[in-house]
Amino acid sequence: MAIKIVCLPGDGIGPEVTQSTIAVLKAVGEKFRIEFDIAEYPIGGIAIEQSGTPLPDQTLAACKEADAVFLGAIGGPQWENPEASVRPEQGLLKLRSELGVFSNIRPLKVFPSLISSSPLKPERLAGVDFVVVRELTGGIYFGERTRQDDYATDECRYSVGEVERIARVACEMAMQRNKRVTSVDKANVLETSRLWREVVTRVVKNEFPEINLEHQLVDSCAMKLIQQPAHFDVILTENMFGDILSDEASVLSGSMGLLASASIGDGVGLFEPIHGSAPDIAGLGIANPYASILSAAMMLRWLNLELAAKAVEDAVLDAIDNGTLTRDLTISNSMREASTKEATQAVLEAI
Amino acid sequence: MAIKIVCLPGDGIGPEVTQSTIAVLKAVGEKFRIEFDIAEYPIGGIAIEQSGTPLPDQTLAACKEADAVFLGAIGGPQWENPEASVRPEQGLLKLRSELGVFSNIRPLKVFPSLISSSPLKPERLAGVDFVVVRELTGGIYFGERTRQDDYATDECRYSVGEVERIARVACEMAMQRNKRVTSVDKANVLETSRLWREVVTRVVKNEFPEINLEHQLVDSCAMKLIQQPAHFDVILTENMFGDILSDEASVLSGSMGLLASASIGDGVGLFEPIHGSAPDIAGLGIANPYASILSAAMMLRWLNLELAAKAVEDAVLDAIDNGTLTRDLTISNSMREASTKEATQAVLEAI
Ligand SMILES: CC(C)[C@H](C(=O)O)[C@@H](O)C(=O)O
Ligand SMILES: CC(C)[C@H](C(=O)O)[C@@H](O)C(=O)O
Repeated sequence: MAIKIVCLPGDGIGPEVTQSTIAVLKAVGEKFRIEFDIAEYPIGGIAIEQSGTPLPDQTLAACKEADAVFLGAIGGPQWENPEASVRPEQGLLKLRSELGVFSNIRPLKVFPSLISSSPLKPERLAGVDFVVVRELTGGIYFGERTRQDDYATDECRYSVGEVERIARVACEMAMQRNKRVTSVDKANVLETSRLWREVVTRVVKNEFPEINLEHQLVDSCAMKLIQQPAHFDVILTENMFGDILSDEASVLSGSMGLLASASIGDGVGLFEPIHGSAPDIAGLGIANPYASILSAAMMLRWLNLELAAKAVEDAVLDAIDNGTLTRDLTISNSMREASTKEATQAVLEAI
Repeated sequence: MAIKIVCLPGDGIGPEVTQSTIAVLKAVGEKFRIEFDIAEYPIGGIAIEQSGTPLPDQTLAACKEADAVFLGAIGGPQWENPEASVRPEQGLLKLRSELGVFSNIRPLKVFPSLISSSPLKPERLAGVDFVVVRELTGGIYFGERTRQDDYATDECRYSVGEVERIARVACEMAMQRNKRVTSVDKANVLETSRLWREVVTRVVKNEFPEINLEHQLVDSCAMKLIQQPAHFDVILTENMFGDILSDEASVLSGSMGLLASASIGDGVGLFEPIHGSAPDIAGLGIANPYASILSAAMMLRWLNLELAAKAVEDAVLDAIDNGTLTRDLTISNSMREASTKEATQAVLEAI
């Protein structure tokens, strides 16, 4: 039976990197005789322009019936008017919530051939290999908000159940790795953080006694990520802190254009590159498709298509090793810059 | 008339660096014939042990009557039990709120002689010189909280007035510098951030039309701080984002032990080094007193004692240039490590 994949190209460079990714999925499907049924739907700014809403009903319905969803990127300056009543991001937030993808997984790897483009000194990057597990459907992102003439409020709320399930995701991941979890909170100030710390402590104690658990305050963690990134194995954090820390972490490697993410819950999974819509280079044909293709590899692995996932990952590494580098990855002006097409072609050839 | 300074040594290395600072204040007072009336009061963990509360009434009353308050550091693992009903931080938060010090100012400078201890490559640090202006008495730090058996909440609240006054502080500071303000929020998700963005935009437009204002989302800002720290002049941010970003920024320079902070409102000012209580080295006589002494220099400047402020700053720079470096500042194991006493002595001699 065909595997149903819904692709949401979205805005900015989203459509370009999605095209590349679909080409790679088709190639790997042929190679491994996997039948993919790929359909595209609008989301974000483009959906607002087409139908007035960032997550049209048909898009949401298709996603719910899919085996997996792939998202390019959303947003751009033309939709950033603060007075606007609909914004592209609302589509993404609603999609996460409706799909129940409560855990966002972002592996951070350092690619040795690209270390020179990191802002950090190479010795700080030795041995850096961690995963950020971010709670994605709770906290201040989804609490009540009010707006009056003279003030505004946002509520951060976490239930015991929400913390338990994300703690388990992080612990299960740590069990496959170095069995170390750093749980991040602001327990010296926030009540939700004190709940977070209690629940995480209990889950580890009762269900994962082998795991080495530490708690870090979010401000300390923001420092340690730069000072000693090799310290971390699995970083477990709530929604807002995870948004900040995972973006901070992403620049360490100097190769944001290679970082993939998966958002997973009890049902369908949502996979996207972390780089965003990069409106400044949209349509120029120079966007780096590798992060997007690597997100598709995470999707294949999650679909239990391990061989296909590995083939795609290896093909991207091959393309990079062969020096097919898009503009964001080239480190000197004298290097030849590959286009989106050329980078995609290099991956297709390596498959 | 004597200038009344209340010193709150606090916990961990707090008492050690406060002693150094008092010695420097006395020396600079003699030199410039300024009479300081310095009194010490307990705060934080030590206050909990002495009287069961992290901010005793006498401490608060003395602070309110002082011309300026100097704080060493608070907190430590012995008070971190999550079930504890009183915690050292509550004393600091209550003090900030009672003194109405709504703006926290943290200048980030890069000391050329210490660049080699930064985690960042030297070329990224060229030209880095910015100030973080953090709102300090509002937001999720001071909103309502609830705790039930199965969930917890924290409310983030900002009024127009709170945003206006901190925006003015940042703008006034920018007018003395390069006239650039980066306002940080998460306006694509939070209602308080949309209010923040509107009010900041209006204050700049109506009152500081010369200022070049940009808005950055907190996740982007966390990246840019590492990728391109020289981009910033004045960073304006709400309480929680400011906590995270200012700590993140503090490690860029590689010399956290040199960073000072001022918390200012309409009345008395509160000055403290940003390094915290460092319980692991407390009592060993090796704490770096320079950040604390530089915080006292910020205090002198705020008290309009410019000459004394400058003398203290120059003395610290002299001591560093002469190679009197505490353990945290030495970059190779073969360097001689100065004790707290030696570092203080070096500053006293240079005054
Ligand atoms: C677009 C925005 C709402 C989103 C978030 O804050 O979650 C993004 O920054 C991300 O991290 O995926
Ligand atoms: C101790 C803590 C409550 C405090 C804060 O979060 O404000 C500290 O981190 C700071 O930045 O001064």
